[in-house]
Amino acid sequence: MNQFFYSNRISKGLIHLECDEAYHALKVLRKKQGDKISVVNGLGSLYSAVIEEDEVNKCMLRVIEEKENYQKPNHHIHIAIAPTKSHDRMEWFVEKVVEIGIQEISFLQTQRTERKNIKIDRMKKRAISSMKQSLKAFLPLINECMDYEDFLKTCSNNHKYVGYLDHENVKMLSKICKINENYCVMVGPEGDFTEQEIFDALDSGFDCVSLSKSRLRTETAGLMACHMLNIINQ
Amino acid sequence: MNQFFYSNRISKGLIHLECDEAYHALKVLRKKQGDKISVVNGLGSLYSAVIEEDEVNKCMLRVIEEKENYQKPNHHIHIAIAPTKSHDRMEWFVEKVVEIGIQEISFLQTQRTERKNIKIDRMKKRAISSMKQSLKAFLPLINECMDYEDFLKTCSNNHKYVGYLDHENVKMLSKICKINENYCVMVGPEGDFTEQEIFDALDSGFDCVSLSKSRLRTETAGLMACHMLNIINQ
Repeated sequence: MNQFFYSNRISKGLIHLECDEAYHALKVLRKKQGDKISVVNGLGSLYSAVIEEDEVNKCMLRVIEEKENYQKPNHHIHIAIAPTKSHDRMEWFVEKVVEIGIQEISFLQTQRTERKNIKIDRMKKRAISSMKQSLKAFLPLINECMDYEDFLKTCSNNHKYVGYLDHENVKMLSKICKINENYCVMVGPEGDFTEQEIFDALDSGFDCVSLSKSRLRTETAGLMACHMLNIINQ
Repeated sequence: MNQFFYSNRISKGLIHLECDEAYHALKVLRKKQGDKISVVNGLGSLYSAVIEEDEVNKCMLRVIEEKENYQKPNHHIHIAIAPTKSHDRMEWFVEKVVEIGIQEISFLQTQRTERKNIKIDRMKKRAISSMKQSLKAFLPLINECMDYEDFLKTCSNNHKYVGYLDHENVKMLSKICKINENYCVMVGPEGDFTEQEIFDALDSGFDCVSLSKSRLRTETAGLMACHMLNIINQ
């Protein structure tokens, strides 16, 4: 089965594999000098490369071929989500959206957000692992936690949606969004957005949408929004 | 916010709440004799009931109203999945599919299935918790682990699909399935179904489908198949 490795240390036709990646290639998969492996840089490039130095702490590869913009989609999906109390649930969310396809993730400090900080390094690590697992070459942009009102001011996606539970007569996201677009979907905290926050979102050009007939947990709602946009763009 | 409790001990207009449910109602939410709560039985009934006895170890309610077939869908979604090595990932799968809506779950012993047993009691517990969380009254049927060939013989859903990774020119599930139907989607293990297993599935009336353009983990594929069928039926 296909296997991708990750490196962000690539220059002049040489790829340096960090220890954990090198360990996996050399010790787990028993790759040796002269063997060919696939490496992605998280910025869209997929490299075919040959192992030149097969020691774990100084593993070096030579690039044979580079494919830029590997499987680059025509759309941009940005999910902005209020972090859940459980960090695990957020890490799980990141793993799953990267698997199915996402371009940007933001974390929102809303009035009812129960977690004030995000372990962004752990999120990025989980995203890298999921990118490799799902054979992708692009890592999503993962933004630091942001104040809700600031986010409303700076969010520049063309199609902006906010998932809202208690709002009546709201249309399903799947029924109204168009293909090949640049989307942002905001997903609220466990206690939902406040009414004022919804008004502010509408003021800032967001449309209220329903993400499901069921009441979903925050991380499930975020994942389902992302999946819906992926299906529409398939 | 709305809150459902669960009981399977309901008769003659009386509901007995088990200790953990009673503890949540009486100690966490501080409900008292005379207060009204909502109870589901997992078989489709939603009860409005008044607390008559407010002690945790013998909590008793009197039914005021019963709604049968609460939010019963017109479709039947059955996901048959090869359990992953990690039991956590399977429990997570159960939580999520119950949240978004599922009627039946089976576990398949395929040639490459890495886990031979399923802790079915833990699965059911997780399903109950997820049913309450997402305000549903139906628990899905969760079947014991089954040999793949036996499953093929007994599976009686009208529309039978098998997700297959390596198959070319396979149609997306989202493009071919019809609404208000009775579906089964089989999802293979981490190493996928064998070719022989796919032949056997085709022989048994299953159609090969693709669940995503991405390579998905087993539990993600199962969840996405379930979500897709839910979207189509929305």
